Amino acid sequence: VTGSVLVVGTGLIGTSIGLALDGHRRVLLADTDAGRLGVAVGRGAGEPWDGKVTAELAVVAVPPTKTAVVLTDLLRREVSEILTHVSSSQTQVQLDLDALGTQTATICGGHPLAGRETAGPDGATARLFEGRPWVACPLAGTSERAVAAVTELAAACGAEPMVMSPEAHDRAVAASSHLPQVVASALGARLLVADAAAVRVSGPGLQDTTRIAASDAGLWTEVLTANALQVAPLVAGLAEELRRVADALDVLAVSPGDAAAAQVLRDMLVRGNAGRALVPVKQGVLDRDVAVVAVRVPDEPGRLADLLVRAAAAGVNVEDIRVEHLAGRKTGVVELLVRSVHQASLAATLAGSGHEVLGGGG
Amino acid sequence: VTGSVLVVGTGLIGTSIGLALDGHRRVLLADTDAGRLGVAVGRGAGEPWDGKVTAELAVVAVPPTKTAVVLTDLLRREVSEILTHVSSSQTQVQLDLDALGTQTATICGGHPLAGRETAGPDGATARLFEGRPWVACPLAGTSERAVAAVTELAAACGAEPMVMSPEAHDRAVAASSHLPQVVASALGARLLVADAAAVRVSGPGLQDTTRIAASDAGLWTEVLTANALQVAPLVAGLAEELRRVADALDVLAVSPGDAAAAQVLRDMLVRGNAGRALVPVKQGVLDRDVAVVAVRVPDEPGRLADLLVRAAAAGVNVEDIRVEHLAGRKTGVVELLVRSVHQASLAATLAGSGHEVLGGGG
Repeated sequence: VTGSVLVVGTGLIGTSIGLALDGHRRVLLADTDAGRLGVAVGRGAGEPWDGKVTAELAVVAVPPTKTAVVLTDLLRREVSEILTHVSSSQTQVQLDLDALGTQTATICGGHPLAGRETAGPDGATARLFEGRPWVACPLAGTSERAVAAVTELAAACGAEPMVMSPEAHDRAVAASSHLPQVVASALGARLLVADAAAVRVSGPGLQDTTRIAASDAGLWTEVLTANALQVAPLVAGLAEELRRVADALDVLAVSPGDAAAAQVLRDMLVRGNAGRALVPVKQGVLDRDVAVVAVRVPDEPGRLADLLVRAAAAGVNVEDIRVEHLAGRKTGVVELLVRSVHQASLAATLAGSGHEVLGGGG
Repeated sequence: VTGSVLVVGTGLIGTSIGLALDGHRRVLLADTDAGRLGVAVGRGAGEPWDGKVTAELAVVAVPPTKTAVVLTDLLRREVSEILTHVSSSQTQVQLDLDALGTQTATICGGHPLAGRETAGPDGATARLFEGRPWVACPLAGTSERAVAAVTELAAACGAEPMVMSPEAHDRAVAASSHLPQVVASALGARLLVADAAAVRVSGPGLQDTTRIAASDAGLWTEVLTANALQVAPLVAGLAEELRRVADALDVLAVSPGDAAAAQVLRDMLVRGNAGRALVPVKQGVLDRDVAVVAVRVPDEPGRLADLLVRAAAAGVNVEDIRVEHLAGRKTGVVELLVRSVHQASLAATLAGSGHEVLGGGG
């Protein structure tokens, strides 16, 4: 992609693409909502499209259900040599295009994995895609040139280009993104029927496990619908797993010594350990590579900062941080995740500077 | 409790109780494992019990399945006026005591909600219970004086004493602690059968939702077994919820326009939003009270610290932090959770000092 880029849809993703390409490509922007378009233009994401000038690449960044119709319209108007989109479901767009009888030689699907809880052009940033996977998904008839245009676009935006079939892409995000959303939301939903005292005695486990249940319900209804074919069996499999656990618990409620029922629980928990160990803390870093240094700090400005200043002075990079507040009191526990090799020295450094370092750590 | 306290079982909880009471009460320690006892004594949690001296209060801090037997033994030996324990299941201990024919006038159950991923006396700290709920659970025949002894112990350890019936306690932790553990573990277990590409395209949602799946499988088998009566219907309810979602997704996979099926999804997601909104960020602080300031920072020592130093200098208390690493690149997004009223000023302060503040925020 060395020519101009037309971005249709100036939400979070579309506007961020414009900002990321600023200075490298001529970017033309279009949106049915003039207010949103104005914000994107005002933020420097590109210039408004006049509806006539042609571009080398058109990027359709509209909601999943409208993607195929917009792609088809742009193709018929011959506004660009190549077209792509950014939908989280690749096969649904392919099916929609087939239903419309649209030629796909110049269309290559794409999905930057850069979603945030924010939405709209106000949340956009030039660096949204930096280091993120951006999956190019060629359709049956897609040309090599169209695939190259999408991977070039991804690289120009700072993303890590990958190429997967639409089916492989949809299977992957069903497990890594869509299933966790369903699980977190369903758990949140069950809290509504739980004992009212439950949230009074809740801890960080409930916090973590329900965090993404706050996501937008309308958007996620669309996302899950578009990838229903892949998500359905995963949700059914999880329901079945939980059904087996519930049955085992029913047995144990009556016969606490039932070895077979206890084994069902233990087996599920052990497999949970193994599955969790696969989830990267960050790219290429697994749980086993890192260790926790836990410190108790007063819940007041500057105390957390001092901790990190001392870690930095010791040359230790903090990979992740968890802050656990304690109910009622003005103290919290801060867990610093560092490479295992740094754990002992960081603990000693912090203890030596007067911080209360807690022993051990998961 | 103004007299001496006998702590039986010097794991994380028992040793922490000894440390918390240090200087206020005479603490006697007992453990069947001499090595563990030695660590607890060495850490200053108390003095080894000679097996004869009597105490005002005995605290049994052994695994759930052994709690009733140890309580009964201590009661028969008349080693203390009052007895309590720290099991996460209160009704199971009550049933076990009934089965043993043990008199319960001087026994009051108790549960400090202070679990961590760490275990053993090495992880113990004098401040483990600070600000945490500590639920006293009177049995049928428990005297007022025994209840008062447990709430006094809780307060002496810095916890927030609460009194609940064993049943109410077990219902509450089933929803707030045991169900989330089952959900996270089951989701982790499903990752083992998911597409291998899934974890390559995973983000922070999967991280959060599976975090507690790393918990100890043996301990949790015991915990879930002890509270099976309360946990079973919650797991069954969640399995049923997911079964309905899977059925709706099956319909949508074939008929994406099916309004009734889409409504099943949307309704679950909306209830998930509502349930999540009940979960406190910390004691008395809900999602709606706080706002996010998101900043992109290079992944190197000191950059995160600078952010927090500047927040502290501006007098803004950071309630929570999330660090989101970006795959492959040496940058990450840091989300600072602050009281809503501070959001705009903190964003301006950080932007003014050269940080890249991202727009918006959930």
